[in-house]
Amino acid sequence: MSWTLARRAARLEPSTIREILKVTERPGIISLAGGLPAAEGFPVQAMAEACARVLRDNPREALQYAASEGFGPLRDWVAAEVNGLGLQVDASQVLITTGSQQGLDLVGKVLVDPGCTVAVESPTYLGALQAFNPYEPDFVAIEGDDEGPLPAGLQAAQGARFLYLLPNFQNPSGRCLSAERRLALAVQCAAQGLPVVEDNPYGDLWFDQPPPPPLAATLGDQAVYLGSFSKVLAPGLRLGYVVAPKAMYPKLLQAKQAADLHTPGFNQRVVHEVIKDGFLKQHVPTIRARYKAQRDAMQAALQQHLPAGCRTSVPAGGMFFWVELPPQLDATALLAKAVDAGVAYVPGSAFFASGGHANTLRLSFVTVSPERIAQGVAALGRVLAEALA
Amino acid sequence: MSWTLARRAARLEPSTIREILKVTERPGIISLAGGLPAAEGFPVQAMAEACARVLRDNPREALQYAASEGFGPLRDWVAAEVNGLGLQVDASQVLITTGSQQGLDLVGKVLVDPGCTVAVESPTYLGALQAFNPYEPDFVAIEGDDEGPLPAGLQAAQGARFLYLLPNFQNPSGRCLSAERRLALAVQCAAQGLPVVEDNPYGDLWFDQPPPPPLAATLGDQAVYLGSFSKVLAPGLRLGYVVAPKAMYPKLLQAKQAADLHTPGFNQRVVHEVIKDGFLKQHVPTIRARYKAQRDAMQAALQQHLPAGCRTSVPAGGMFFWVELPPQLDATALLAKAVDAGVAYVPGSAFFASGGHANTLRLSFVTVSPERIAQGVAALGRVLAEALA
Repeated sequence: MSWTLARRAARLEPSTIREILKVTERPGIISLAGGLPAAEGFPVQAMAEACARVLRDNPREALQYAASEGFGPLRDWVAAEVNGLGLQVDASQVLITTGSQQGLDLVGKVLVDPGCTVAVESPTYLGALQAFNPYEPDFVAIEGDDEGPLPAGLQAAQGARFLYLLPNFQNPSGRCLSAERRLALAVQCAAQGLPVVEDNPYGDLWFDQPPPPPLAATLGDQAVYLGSFSKVLAPGLRLGYVVAPKAMYPKLLQAKQAADLHTPGFNQRVVHEVIKDGFLKQHVPTIRARYKAQRDAMQAALQQHLPAGCRTSVPAGGMFFWVELPPQLDATALLAKAVDAGVAYVPGSAFFASGGHANTLRLSFVTVSPERIAQGVAALGRVLAEALA
Repeated sequence: MSWTLARRAARLEPSTIREILKVTERPGIISLAGGLPAAEGFPVQAMAEACARVLRDNPREALQYAASEGFGPLRDWVAAEVNGLGLQVDASQVLITTGSQQGLDLVGKVLVDPGCTVAVESPTYLGALQAFNPYEPDFVAIEGDDEGPLPAGLQAAQGARFLYLLPNFQNPSGRCLSAERRLALAVQCAAQGLPVVEDNPYGDLWFDQPPPPPLAATLGDQAVYLGSFSKVLAPGLRLGYVVAPKAMYPKLLQAKQAADLHTPGFNQRVVHEVIKDGFLKQHVPTIRARYKAQRDAMQAALQQHLPAGCRTSVPAGGMFFWVELPPQLDATALLAKAVDAGVAYVPGSAFFASGGHANTLRLSFVTVSPERIAQGVAALGRVLAEALA
């Protein structure tokens, strides 16, 4: 063809995970590979009532073009919500986005030049790598431990445009940064002049106690904060938000306008209608209880069936267990055998900006029943034991 | 702040038109400045029934994460629709987007490098300039007449990545390219190896006869075609589509996935539920009839009230009249006087890639009643006559 592609198109590649998920959708496979929330938790009745009310009371406004910033009452709600977590912002700093994935794309568009450095966790959220990648940054991975990235590791981020962090029950690692580590990182970032892009899709999904306050509560204008309705309501609405420093907001807004004019106003009004009177205070605890029971089931199964030499820690919220296999095992190479044995997972190497870490994998515990979790982990244990034998 | 913005952020600027619209939203102003469809035409009842059915029959699928390509049956519908216009594509070439604005953004992301050339009409759709701008192209404007861009003018587009065209009832000019001009342009583009990005949001809004077939019907793999549900159903759903050559599709898909994972599945299912049994065959003619009556009202008012030396042509569809004032008048400078006189319009210069054309303006006839159109145009006529005196 006589089309010439942009240079950045070379960095657009099929999602490894989506390709894997296609393989694992065979009937009979117990898929612990998914990244989806449990559909049983979607508030269908509340959604149906809200749709009916919005189309009865404000049909023309809901179906017409709308402001790029988002629906005013929803922006107010978000500002109050994040201020409840410790931020100090007003609604003028809230930009409603088409899922928080779009927030990551807009951050990339406004902040990333080809060849600049972006610092990420190790491992990090794959969707963020995919969002930033077309803007052609170099990634630098910050070393960490079970408490989070190491402040000393930030020396590798000198000159980076920002540090991308997912501090609460991270996808893929399940890790939640301790309060002390957050503070130490915030102090170090401030000292280095390193701003932070903080992504918080899972923070509400805690099991025993809420996570510590966001870094953005400490960092103020040195942080961009992203949130989402995908895990507490439903992802199919594609509703997220960015909270940005006032000086940066106009650029994100103009990037948003160029990207899709505005997020569907109908969806914004429906979600606001659902949540405006405190619905989430009753609803989210039901999701937490469901996910905690399934976390417990997976924890018990992993204790019983993982062979010696495997390492995992117990996530205190979110959707994922992270497993480190003995170094001689390769999770990608073993996936076909696992699928033959009736279980699927996501190999971990895709979550590292510079690859490697072939001996890691991610397991989701939220869309499969406790009984099937036990069966799936037992099958995984057999595959791993055989590979080690 | 210690944030460093990307170079492209310098090209992100507030929309001139949105700034103007804020000024013209004062009560009592007859605004002919809007670009919105008439909300009276939104099929509220059909939408409400479709929402209820989707949430009754497929709630979990509609509210869950979904395929980046879009909802299968909706992609099938789009393929059949565009093949009915003369394209020859299959559903695998259809990408559902979050409004056709997102289609323009994805086209820019995949095809535009900094410093490359993009050829556009003169005037052209402002939203396309805004979508492409962050990817830092140089624009070249192709000279034209009332029939469309001149094939000879394409010599200025040598080496351009593509020609962006909005052939049917263009925003802002109202112009519809003749069949002969389309063919001549297609031949010239093929001869030059110049691919075409063809945008068709208004094609269904014809008054007396449908527009000629798209250039994409002739150009095949040398065209990307964009469509939208915003003007035939409702823009607040943000639902559009891109039909792409098979060789380019994977890159657009991956850009889509990076941008927002997928367009809201709920919206896609609701729209498909509304349109699947031929609803648009009854519904769109009601929009055509409404807009035609208002076009007639504006045509009559312009004939009566525009002072000598003004030039306009009668749009055969769409939403806009385009007015060329005598060369000594400046539509931007006159806007404040017009607003004082109770009428608003959009100055035309924002629609030209390289500015200029200060003596042009755009009038929308679709959201104001015939009586108010007559009053507004009369007021505009008085302001212009006074400026000429």
